[in-house]
Amino acid sequence: MTTDGVPQRTGNNLDPWYANYAERAAGFAASEVRALFAVASRPEVVSLAGGMPFVSALPHELIRSAMDRVMVEQGPVALQYGGGAGIPELREHILEVMSLEGIRGASVDDVVTSTGSQQALDFVAKLFLDPGDVVLAEAPSYVGAMGVFRSYQASVVHVAMDDDGLIPEALRHTIAHLRGQGRRIKFLYTIPNFHNPAGVTLSAARRPEILEICRANEILVLEDNPYGLLHFDEPAPNALRSLDPEGVIYLGSFSKTLAPGFRVGWALAPHAIREKLILAAESAVLSPSSFSQLVVSEYLSTADWRGQIDTFRGVYRERKDAMIEALSEYLPQLSWTNPNGGFYVWVTMPDVLDSKAMLPRAVRELVAYTPGTAFFADGRGRHAMRLSFCYPTPDAIRLGVRRLATVVNGELDLLDTFAGTGTLQAPLTPGIEQAPPSDLK
Amino acid sequence: MTTDGVPQRTGNNLDPWYANYAERAAGFAASEVRALFAVASRPEVVSLAGGMPFVSALPHELIRSAMDRVMVEQGPVALQYGGGAGIPELREHILEVMSLEGIRGASVDDVVTSTGSQQALDFVAKLFLDPGDVVLAEAPSYVGAMGVFRSYQASVVHVAMDDDGLIPEALRHTIAHLRGQGRRIKFLYTIPNFHNPAGVTLSAARRPEILEICRANEILVLEDNPYGLLHFDEPAPNALRSLDPEGVIYLGSFSKTLAPGFRVGWALAPHAIREKLILAAESAVLSPSSFSQLVVSEYLSTADWRGQIDTFRGVYRERKDAMIEALSEYLPQLSWTNPNGGFYVWVTMPDVLDSKAMLPRAVRELVAYTPGTAFFADGRGRHAMRLSFCYPTPDAIRLGVRRLATVVNGELDLLDTFAGTGTLQAPLTPGIEQAPPSDLK
Repeated sequence: MTTDGVPQRTGNNLDPWYANYAERAAGFAASEVRALFAVASRPEVVSLAGGMPFVSALPHELIRSAMDRVMVEQGPVALQYGGGAGIPELREHILEVMSLEGIRGASVDDVVTSTGSQQALDFVAKLFLDPGDVVLAEAPSYVGAMGVFRSYQASVVHVAMDDDGLIPEALRHTIAHLRGQGRRIKFLYTIPNFHNPAGVTLSAARRPEILEICRANEILVLEDNPYGLLHFDEPAPNALRSLDPEGVIYLGSFSKTLAPGFRVGWALAPHAIREKLILAAESAVLSPSSFSQLVVSEYLSTADWRGQIDTFRGVYRERKDAMIEALSEYLPQLSWTNPNGGFYVWVTMPDVLDSKAMLPRAVRELVAYTPGTAFFADGRGRHAMRLSFCYPTPDAIRLGVRRLATVVNGELDLLDTFAGTGTLQAPLTPGIEQAPPSDLK
Repeated sequence: MTTDGVPQRTGNNLDPWYANYAERAAGFAASEVRALFAVASRPEVVSLAGGMPFVSALPHELIRSAMDRVMVEQGPVALQYGGGAGIPELREHILEVMSLEGIRGASVDDVVTSTGSQQALDFVAKLFLDPGDVVLAEAPSYVGAMGVFRSYQASVVHVAMDDDGLIPEALRHTIAHLRGQGRRIKFLYTIPNFHNPAGVTLSAARRPEILEICRANEILVLEDNPYGLLHFDEPAPNALRSLDPEGVIYLGSFSKTLAPGFRVGWALAPHAIREKLILAAESAVLSPSSFSQLVVSEYLSTADWRGQIDTFRGVYRERKDAMIEALSEYLPQLSWTNPNGGFYVWVTMPDVLDSKAMLPRAVRELVAYTPGTAFFADGRGRHAMRLSFCYPTPDAIRLGVRRLATVVNGELDLLDTFAGTGTLQAPLTPGIEQAPPSDLK
């Protein structure tokens, strides 16, 4: 172990601790979304990639005054450690927010606040997932959730969805198939409203059926609902949680209805699970930020937060309309979903195109998107992409889609030219997700 | 699985999901500290139990103005998602803070901010610990760290310490013993300065020796240093990290030098590890709070933060003196450590006393402490307790220690009365850590 008295480590040159990592660390891989955050920050690029809310639509003055009041009236509490479950007065407000989604009669005791709903997802995964367990998720699904499940060495198995969301028959079939293989299914992870990335909503008719299938199979439902209140026309159907309090862990967030910078989200869990969630939270962070929680609570107490959500709805509706119109005008040969809320449109291209291979060309044309493969655990999604309409202005969206059309049409022209030669079957630029952002020029 | 068409779950009555938890969830147990947070909040109790900093010593006006400037000058950034590694300008300030502990030449790239340093601890544990791995830690050690290690199914093995901190010979012996058993040791977790709970500091002379032992055995050092700048007389010796940048992950925190309510801490890691830490952070929370980070950064840019740390030092020195004087006056038959910084005194009682069993009586006398068993993974610590002097005023500390003396002397009198009967061998009130706080009257 030592040579000439100089201790040597058995790791490699790049990382002396290589041999020491936990098995699960093998699943820690940089996501496509991560590199894109960096790309998107260059001002000349129209980013249709990230999921950043348009926080400039917020009344900053109201938030400042909420902060001031928190410091004047509750300074010592705001600056101190809090309880692991979160600040009680915020959790009361959270009940009020959830009542808009049909969740009534829930106990404030069963709400656990977290550092964004992402962290609640992490707690639930830590609590339930053993290596080799299966999590069912829509096809496609949220990249950040799949990363969490993978980080606990679980496998994601996708279930087909259509314009009405998750397909009950596909769910039944997938469960039976996995059970036949002896796999252990821990939960169904679902984004029922204004799906990320697919943009669709689970119909009211399917909701009890999905719950009944999970109940009969003893599969917990993990309902992730960050976009539920951001509908453009009709409100979304009532939350799954409202139909089955014992079978659903509901995850909510203030990142889209207020601002992500505070990192305040929550879980509403069946009572017995909630106890363990708090222990997971205390282990991870002792307590979430008291200051952030009190500011959000003060904002909810004093500001017209429902009116503010209406404002956000108007902003995002206008942007979604701009995107759909631009797609119709510039890329009529593609197909896409037309969401009734949320942040995302899912675009499907002809099979000959590869969205990941095409991305560097798109960025050269100063437009960014998220390749469809990011949203599948099994390599699917090559011919699809997620376009976000949440952050850029309507004009920027039109410009971005026009640039995207240049890229798509250029690719199709190239394919026409080389038609039949087979040279373009392979991805044009394989492995782009490993490239550092600076290489994506 | 169904009876008369009504689905039944196989869990028990208390928790229908009992059978679904991950194996690691078995290690999620409520700590003694948790119940004590609730006890300590009752105003009539003098709490010598919690580790809450005295945030009232902060200039709230300065913090308010830092917040205001952040919102006016950087509102859209503060309210938005940030990068997984944290805000660059804060990480620059963190380098400056760490230079006070002798850490120079570190790269801002290797600093990763987190939701309190507790979360950095969680990331490191997630990255390195497989079930059955061993973490070495001082005897006693920080309860919150041991909880994290246990939550990843690792075992804590204690290494003896004395008034100069961890004992190198004991470390060598423990490593050899564990290696002989074929155990896999992942890291040494150590709090070198003003130890929680023991109050002692690792001497300068021992630091290179400890590092050399770990290096020769390929054991990573996890240096937890939340109290390092809060010395009462001489500064603590330079950080372990300053002596071995490749072998040490350093954890720092603003919870004690500024305020815990923002939940801002950090890790400084070897470069290769840092990449994976960021992936763990993104998986857990996407990004830490931009707002919290910017407020801390603005405070460090504009306030006399070094002077504020001097103020904290003065406050805590006065409280420590009050505690040591009160112990000398009221409990001269016990022994205790006399820390040169930090928040804690470790008190050792005669072997016949049990600090956990005694706690309900202490709370009835309106004083709380943390039983020594909380700080051991192996059941030791019965005859010890941790007393915190950080939060109560000097007068309250004197009152608390006087009340504690009433309890201790009462127990000793009782033992005298029943001497030789053997009836008091067992804990007087077994299982108190499972009792809800309200039962601890």
